[in-house]
Amino acid sequence: MDNKPLVAILMGSDSDLPVMKGAAEALDKFNVDYEMRVLSAHRTPVEAAQYAQDARKRGIRVIIAGAGAAAHLAGAMAAQSVLPVIGVPISTPPLNGMDSLLATVQMPKGIPVATVAISNAFNAGLLAVQIIGAGVPDLSEKLLDKMTAYKQELREVALAKKI
Amino acid sequence: MDNKPLVAILMGSDSDLPVMKGAAEALDKFNVDYEMRVLSAHRTPVEAAQYAQDARKRGIRVIIAGAGAAAHLAGAMAAQSVLPVIGVPISTPPLNGMDSLLATVQMPKGIPVATVAISNAFNAGLLAVQIIGAGVPDLSEKLLDKMTAYKQELREVALAKKI
Amino acid sequence: MDNKPLVAILMGSDSDLPVMKGAAEALDKFNVDYEMRVLSAHRTPVEAAQYAQDARKRGIRVIIAGAGAAAHLAGAMAAQSVLPVIGVPISTPPLNGMDSLLATVQMPKGIPVATVAISNAFNAGLLAVQIIGAGVPDLSEKLLDKMTAYKQELREVALAKKI
Amino acid sequence: MDNKPLVAILMGSDSDLPVMKGAAEALDKFNVDYEMRVLSAHRTPVEAAQYAQDARKRGIRVIIAGAGAAAHLAGAMAAQSVLPVIGVPISTPPLNGMDSLLATVQMPKGIPVATVAISNAFNAGLLAVQIIGAGVPDLSEKLLDKMTAYKQELREVALAKKI
Amino acid sequence: MDNKPLVAILMGSDSDLPVMKGAAEALDKFNVDYEMRVLSAHRTPVEAAQYAQDARKRGIRVIIAGAGAAAHLAGAMAAQSVLPVIGVPISTPPLNGMDSLLATVQMPKGIPVATVAISNAFNAGLLAVQIIGAGVPDLSEKLLDKMTAYKQELREVALAKKI
Amino acid sequence: MDNKPLVAILMGSDSDLPVMKGAAEALDKFNVDYEMRVLSAHRTPVEAAQYAQDARKRGIRVIIAGAGAAAHLAGAMAAQSVLPVIGVPISTPPLNGMDSLLATVQMPKGIPVATVAISNAFNAGLLAVQIIGAGVPDLSEKLLDKMTAYKQELREVALAKKI
Amino acid sequence: MDNKPLVAILMGSDSDLPVMKGAAEALDKFNVDYEMRVLSAHRTPVEAAQYAQDARKRGIRVIIAGAGAAAHLAGAMAAQSVLPVIGVPISTPPLNGMDSLLATVQMPKGIPVATVAISNAFNAGLLAVQIIGAGVPDLSEKLLDKMTAYKQELREVALAKKI
Amino acid sequence: MDNKPLVAILMGSDSDLPVMKGAAEALDKFNVDYEMRVLSAHRTPVEAAQYAQDARKRGIRVIIAGAGAAAHLAGAMAAQSVLPVIGVPISTPPLNGMDSLLATVQMPKGIPVATVAISNAFNAGLLAVQIIGAGVPDLSEKLLDKMTAYKQELREVALAKKI
Repeated sequence: MDNKPLVAILMGSDSDLPVMKGAAEALDKFNVDYEMRVLSAHRTPVEAAQYAQDARKRGIRVIIAGAGAAAHLAGAMAAQSVLPVIGVPISTPPLNGMDSLLATVQMPKGIPVATVAISNAFNAGLLAVQIIGAGVPDLSEKLLDKMTAYKQELREVALAKKI
Repeated sequence: MDNKPLVAILMGSDSDLPVMKGAAEALDKFNVDYEMRVLSAHRTPVEAAQYAQDARKRGIRVIIAGAGAAAHLAGAMAAQSVLPVIGVPISTPPLNGMDSLLATVQMPKGIPVATVAISNAFNAGLLAVQIIGAGVPDLSEKLLDKMTAYKQELREVALAKKI
Repeated sequence: MDNKPLVAILMGSDSDLPVMKGAAEALDKFNVDYEMRVLSAHRTPVEAAQYAQDARKRGIRVIIAGAGAAAHLAGAMAAQSVLPVIGVPISTPPLNGMDSLLATVQMPKGIPVATVAISNAFNAGLLAVQIIGAGVPDLSEKLLDKMTAYKQELREVALAKKI
Repeated sequence: MDNKPLVAILMGSDSDLPVMKGAAEALDKFNVDYEMRVLSAHRTPVEAAQYAQDARKRGIRVIIAGAGAAAHLAGAMAAQSVLPVIGVPISTPPLNGMDSLLATVQMPKGIPVATVAISNAFNAGLLAVQIIGAGVPDLSEKLLDKMTAYKQELREVALAKKI
Repeated sequence: MDNKPLVAILMGSDSDLPVMKGAAEALDKFNVDYEMRVLSAHRTPVEAAQYAQDARKRGIRVIIAGAGAAAHLAGAMAAQSVLPVIGVPISTPPLNGMDSLLATVQMPKGIPVATVAISNAFNAGLLAVQIIGAGVPDLSEKLLDKMTAYKQELREVALAKKI
Repeated sequence: MDNKPLVAILMGSDSDLPVMKGAAEALDKFNVDYEMRVLSAHRTPVEAAQYAQDARKRGIRVIIAGAGAAAHLAGAMAAQSVLPVIGVPISTPPLNGMDSLLATVQMPKGIPVATVAISNAFNAGLLAVQIIGAGVPDLSEKLLDKMTAYKQELREVALAKKI
Repeated sequence: MDNKPLVAILMGSDSDLPVMKGAAEALDKFNVDYEMRVLSAHRTPVEAAQYAQDARKRGIRVIIAGAGAAAHLAGAMAAQSVLPVIGVPISTPPLNGMDSLLATVQMPKGIPVATVAISNAFNAGLLAVQIIGAGVPDLSEKLLDKMTAYKQELREVALAKKI
Repeated sequence: MDNKPLVAILMGSDSDLPVMKGAAEALDKFNVDYEMRVLSAHRTPVEAAQYAQDARKRGIRVIIAGAGAAAHLAGAMAAQSVLPVIGVPISTPPLNGMDSLLATVQMPKGIPVATVAISNAFNAGLLAVQIIGAGVPDLSEKLLDKMTAYKQELREVALAKKI
């Protein structure tokens, strides 16, 4: 395995690092290469969008995104990439992650986020390993291309709505 | 008052229209011009980002955004515009809007969303009227420019984080 | 900018000051003048009502009100002023602000409170800056006058109810 | 018993009448005279405050107040009267009265509201009967006068706070 | 005022004393005599029932009962006495009093408990003062007798049910 | 098997019968005899206490008790009997049984209630069958006698508390 | 009483021991023999299933299972044994046991788990004593055999479903 | 693409089919073959365990499991397979899927379940497509073998615990 990262570990703030390094720990255990970035759906929305749009062509196969409270980062990634996105709802005071969980998991039809337990980034890392392991060689690129087309279709239907 | 819209009423899906037209009703009552759009943070993220970036220069002064469940639209607007953004958490089954409320209101430091009661778009319209009425002529453009600088600062601090 | 305050920062108790000074910090950052007051919807209802009734003519353009538990202060301000009112639900034990959030945000039709995240007074300050910046010179006084008439209408309809 | 009302049944809106007439039903069963009013803490705050201030001298001994969502009416009465105030949290969509309950019951130190079960106005009526029955002749006026002094003390302490 | 207690302050366990002494503090402030007892609906059900049955004839006019978790004490008092019963839901880990609140306030039709804020025993004491002050001399004993008859009626209707 | 009932199915109100007959259905399936009663912890507390005290000597081995909202019936049975008590939290509007669940399950140390899923009386019946099947002949009466002593000990400790 | 264990105390992790030893403490008090095991529905599912299947023939009469978060252990035991299973939902951060409670108590029709209060393993031990005491000699084995047949029936019905 | 299924769609009961067919609909859209089964963690635990153990060798690459209330099916699959498991928490009365969500998502360290929004099986199907597309040919089998070893390690550590 070369060092080109297969998994992205993103977090909304560097204060999320103590939680999110759990994902790195799981990936290290399986020798799966990754990169970590602080990218905020709210403070760096342009960079976050760019990251999502470029991830597949840069070789990333799975995106892990952790955020707390009105946790939008995983959803923002899922909105702009065809790669599977794993969301880690981070427990933050005062609601202890119930807000983070609901903001991460309750995604609308068409845009799934694979949500793990609150603050359980280690499990996000394991799930990324399983996802990379579960792919089917002959289908992988074809399915991601189809997913690109599907998202375009969602977009066009939405834009065509007259109200 | 000419017909150039001062308020944007955005919603994630045309199925949100029965709720969101309450905002239009309130604005009509005060003869404040508005435009309505279906724009989804998840299905049309590029268009949504573009809308947020252009809104101020197009003359919009307040953005009202309604969405349900993992409701990201208001936050996505707030991330990319210096205008005040009013969030309407829309009640959707099965959690009756508790998810929408938390995903809308629990925004991180630096990016407020002015949240009204669940599905109460009429109040969002009234609040937009109050906001337009509360501005201070000599300060308005200067403060919005400063807010632009502040958001740039937030972005630079976030991008400079090493992890 | 002279020193006449444009924003009021109100709180139900001086024990709320550690949270509420976040609003002052944000306003200081934008050089927007403000005044701070302890005013309780429950312990000083007459003074609170008087404050709300006088705020506009004293030059206040936005009211920020923070309270916890059965948090009524923001709603009490909104009931008696046409200015936009920003509510800060303050986290208090044992329910960690869920009570404060619901008591602040779930306002009835006709009386909005612009609610920010639990204990996030800094965002309330930023939102006040955005509101002052978003006003439209030619419309501001006219719209606030109309809002006064609207509130009178709400009152008359309510008083006319026979049960 | 003459017809001078001993109990006030107040509600924020005439749409609350189907629930609140339960209180009247209980009082009728015990031949306790009452009056019913639509008074809103938000739409008719001045009238509501006036009502609370006059209630004792008009002969009212117990105030029952029902409201939904950010239910402030009972708290507003308790803030301005020394009489016992019974709060009926009314179930309203979409949160089914959990917001009403918390906004009614979680009152701060010094200003109790005697809260009954969600939408259970009949029990509020029974409780009013029990309260009228539990008074101690020689103490009643003296204690209410003391309570007036206590509330004044609360007010003065709050007003003296420097921040 | 002689020393015969007018108010009972009951608690399910002596570990509740740090909370419940708040009620005593309020009553002391108004020179209202009281007695305090540890009585558990679950561990001493016979003594608790006996206490409730005897309270009125012993001169007690208001019963304050505090308990946590599946908090039954206030309801058990209300079931067996015609006196007004004030419930103090005590915050206990791990649910922070949400269980105590619901178990105290959500009483069925016919058996009200006047519930105050979680762990706010001081307010329970104030409410007891207000209740004693609000009674109407000529009516008090008559209404409590009627309430006795009403409870007997509830009992007979329940016992007559065939299933 | 003769017809002497081994299981008691109790409910707070005959309106609970549609739910509680599920317990009877399960017991019928296993030919376990039972009796059904309407007994309310709040409306017929004396009869309920008497029932609990007599149950063991009348041959009852398991008590199933269903109630809604501030559901105290199962706890009241457990307080006064050494038999195992199964609680069925019944879903009632507006809180859909969350109040019933917490009021049933969150019993204090010393007085367990075996709680099944909300409104799942059928499972309560199955559990009663399992309990009757799981007893150990030589131990059964001895253990119930010891439990009687234990409850007496709990009572004495509680009564000895000085506050 | 010989030393053959009648009660099994199972826990998902040895970190649950400080809570679960409460069950042992209660059983010791009544001289009821037990065994304790760490068995996880998720990490040792084969061993857990085997334990459930063998428990009855090994002489176990009651299974107590404690687990936190997505607490499946008690349900997994109940799925594979006809013995009564007592579930102890263990409080774990960040949701304080609300997840544990719901995952333990909300079992489907046919497979009850007798749930006690969050982290209240002592009560689970007491309930086990009551269960062993409540059995009916002539019926016990017959009913457990019937329960085996019933579970087989549930299985066959489920397997016969065509979708 | 031949007809050998790559995705398993499992559900606890055939009554879940109206929800779970959404997953099939998404897979059909991408021409990904699947099989559907009714398998219950509670009623057919042996068959469910067998299915999980055999899935990989039968060619399944992703398991989708939907269940309601104390929803254990997805966790049971994850416990016994190294394949990625997607959980669909199904909304069931009376708690509207909050129980299903917590029982599905809050999995312990080591055993992730990729959870989608309540009742949103269509998104589970899309996520399965993305997972199959995201695999890395040279790594897939190697990683799944490593995951098998990891689960064995978890098992051994758990079994070695002395308490």
